[in-house]
Amino acid sequence: MANTKQILALNRFDARHAEGLGAELESLIARRQATFGASSVLVYERPIRMVRAEGVWMFDADGRRYLDVYNNVASVGHCHPRVVDAIAKQAATLNTNTRYLYDNVHDYAERLLATFPGELSNIVFTCTGSESNDLALRLTNSFTGGTGFVVTETAYHGNTEAVTAVSPSSFKTHTVPPHVRTVPAPDLYRHPTNDVGSRFAEDVTSAIADLERNGVKFGGLLVDSIFSSDGIYADPAGFLKQAVDVVREAGGLVISDEVQPGFGRTGSGMWGFQRHSVEPDIVTMGKPMGNGFPVGGVVTRPEILEPFCATTGYFNTFGGNPVAAAAGLAVLDVIEDEGLIENANQIGGQLRAGLRQIAGRHPSIGDVRSAGLFIGIEFSLPGTTDPDAAAASYAINALKERGVLIGAAGAYGNVLKVRPPLCFSRDNADLFLETLDAVLSER
Amino acid sequence: MANTKQILALNRFDARHAEGLGAELESLIARRQATFGASSVLVYERPIRMVRAEGVWMFDADGRRYLDVYNNVASVGHCHPRVVDAIAKQAATLNTNTRYLYDNVHDYAERLLATFPGELSNIVFTCTGSESNDLALRLTNSFTGGTGFVVTETAYHGNTEAVTAVSPSSFKTHTVPPHVRTVPAPDLYRHPTNDVGSRFAEDVTSAIADLERNGVKFGGLLVDSIFSSDGIYADPAGFLKQAVDVVREAGGLVISDEVQPGFGRTGSGMWGFQRHSVEPDIVTMGKPMGNGFPVGGVVTRPEILEPFCATTGYFNTFGGNPVAAAAGLAVLDVIEDEGLIENANQIGGQLRAGLRQIAGRHPSIGDVRSAGLFIGIEFSLPGTTDPDAAAASYAINALKERGVLIGAAGAYGNVLKVRPPLCFSRDNADLFLETLDAVLSER
Repeated sequence: MANTKQILALNRFDARHAEGLGAELESLIARRQATFGASSVLVYERPIRMVRAEGVWMFDADGRRYLDVYNNVASVGHCHPRVVDAIAKQAATLNTNTRYLYDNVHDYAERLLATFPGELSNIVFTCTGSESNDLALRLTNSFTGGTGFVVTETAYHGNTEAVTAVSPSSFKTHTVPPHVRTVPAPDLYRHPTNDVGSRFAEDVTSAIADLERNGVKFGGLLVDSIFSSDGIYADPAGFLKQAVDVVREAGGLVISDEVQPGFGRTGSGMWGFQRHSVEPDIVTMGKPMGNGFPVGGVVTRPEILEPFCATTGYFNTFGGNPVAAAAGLAVLDVIEDEGLIENANQIGGQLRAGLRQIAGRHPSIGDVRSAGLFIGIEFSLPGTTDPDAAAASYAINALKERGVLIGAAGAYGNVLKVRPPLCFSRDNADLFLETLDAVLSER
Repeated sequence: MANTKQILALNRFDARHAEGLGAELESLIARRQATFGASSVLVYERPIRMVRAEGVWMFDADGRRYLDVYNNVASVGHCHPRVVDAIAKQAATLNTNTRYLYDNVHDYAERLLATFPGELSNIVFTCTGSESNDLALRLTNSFTGGTGFVVTETAYHGNTEAVTAVSPSSFKTHTVPPHVRTVPAPDLYRHPTNDVGSRFAEDVTSAIADLERNGVKFGGLLVDSIFSSDGIYADPAGFLKQAVDVVREAGGLVISDEVQPGFGRTGSGMWGFQRHSVEPDIVTMGKPMGNGFPVGGVVTRPEILEPFCATTGYFNTFGGNPVAAAAGLAVLDVIEDEGLIENANQIGGQLRAGLRQIAGRHPSIGDVRSAGLFIGIEFSLPGTTDPDAAAASYAINALKERGVLIGAAGAYGNVLKVRPPLCFSRDNADLFLETLDAVLSER
């Protein structure tokens, strides 16, 4: 059962169905199974042998073109020439660790920090969102003395040992560890309320109380402000504020995981937490930061960084090296020069409106939720709010056969995650909407 | 005291001495302090503003050239054109995660695995050595059921929460946690013996017994086969074998951390464990793997990977993406085509012989230890084995003023770490030896 759920939730290829895919795919899959072993995670019923990508398009080995509505790493567009040039030039010039001084690393640190509220003035560069969240947990522990964390029920924050413990979506067999409490996602669709902010804050209050009752001192709330892996819960903007207040009153820190919503995706500012008018104590970054170059970061206040550094040596060999900085600077330039935040807002609005029209024609779509170019399309059994993972799985694979890439999220794998590159155009949006409409009509 | 030790051990720049470095350096250091805050780690009494690097040479903003005898990340040479071209071409073509199939990722996995003994047939790609060791600890725990680990007294294995717990060299104030036991490094210089292998194995046996006596089930031995951060202990080749046997008898796994010795540096095969004629259960890789592109990996047996994947979702977004694979393949090509393992052996031999001659003239050098191009030069108070960190610190900073980059290791920061790019030439080695001789003569 756990396995079935996992396969559905991740739109995961089931290796038991490898036969009949044709000699080339079968051979590549066999080579992959032999080397990656049990860790192999492929997507789609019929995996794709990808060879090239450009902007919003990806191309397979047969020359087939796919509209990418899924990959949020290549956030300013696949193989964006300005980012590629920046990486190539810097890699040919100098690529070593940050124990020397480099102009571009300091330019980047300042450019990036300028997008944050003034008190968040220190940055530690890492290589991945996982490393960022791992460090954030330790900063929280060192500052508060608390080891207890509150996260949402289907949260995903990364893959290290410490971060997996606060990522219930990665648990296949085990349960939530004793230092962690989960709260339900702010789900207005399945559990309507006039005041989701109060309800979410009450859940956080109960979770903190339960930790303390069990002798675990509370450290902080770790939250992805767009609730990506829970199923995407965006509205109403501002609902996080009460939970933040509750955390502060309990002496904890608020960690905003911006690996998914960050870098302009929500269409109203650089960071997802800005939609909620809150100021986190720690912000973590990853995926879109270098448009595919492995770079991450943790932003916080000096008073939080100092006690940690006083007790523990921390150095990240590749973190924030000159090539990472060059990639990161180019990403900031492109976001600004191409107006990508405004584009995320505009095209996100077009998609939201179009998807709501489509939902009117297809009762399998129970809800559409979004902020900018981060949209969730929830499939339910018609007339109910019961999750319909089979409908989502059908849509994902049928869209792929028609040249559109998308994936799923949520506890039941029944929510389509719409996260295209931020340079998605009006025409791209129309094509996605038409194709989804057609695919649902054919079922 | 701890802080002084840390500054010496890492050849760390002390920000209290920033005045008098000149307007440009002072300004850059101030910008760095403002953004990196307490996490800033710079090296040398007078930090270097680095702008360019090529092969074994690095260049500062004043056009000054430095011979790099320290940086083991750019292992096949700074900005090697084949690696740079591979990164640039692949970054312009396709750069996304491994949930699709790519020819070059599978070519790379096979090429790399072919350098390992046959049973070590599965690989999980990560982004860093830290992520690799974090995963190795969890694989060990999941396979053995043990949570206890044995490491050396001044070990460094990475920067995540779980890996820092087994990295005593990162502890500034805290002590070894309850699930960890440390053993002394195999130090023949300070503690001579005819059988260092037996002594090291006995220490591991005692550590395992002490874990079990305290109710902690033993998981494994995590060891860097060149003992880099302990101070570099290489000889006699083979001395690890008895400790490996002891670990196996106790039901534990052996994790070989090849982040430092791996990819040919020891001059006799690709991996440090090969010098010891042992076969680890898990091998971890990082730093030199992509010559600066952030990529790491964990190699193990399928039976060890399977139980972990059955219970825990693991995915690494950037890990082993097509650009990482392109960089990794280029590194393997260069190592082979330029004969870098044989070069490490030859030039390593030249350096070892030359350093022993120099040691004969300078009583501050107490010992020279090496395998290939990984060499430790230990400074002691003349006539004793008492560590002389001041002599090491003098040498590091005086060498730097004469255009040679080097750093320190060991519990007392008194061991020079000689780790040049593997393309180091006879002339480069002569220049290093002459400069070191001159610097020591001037003291």
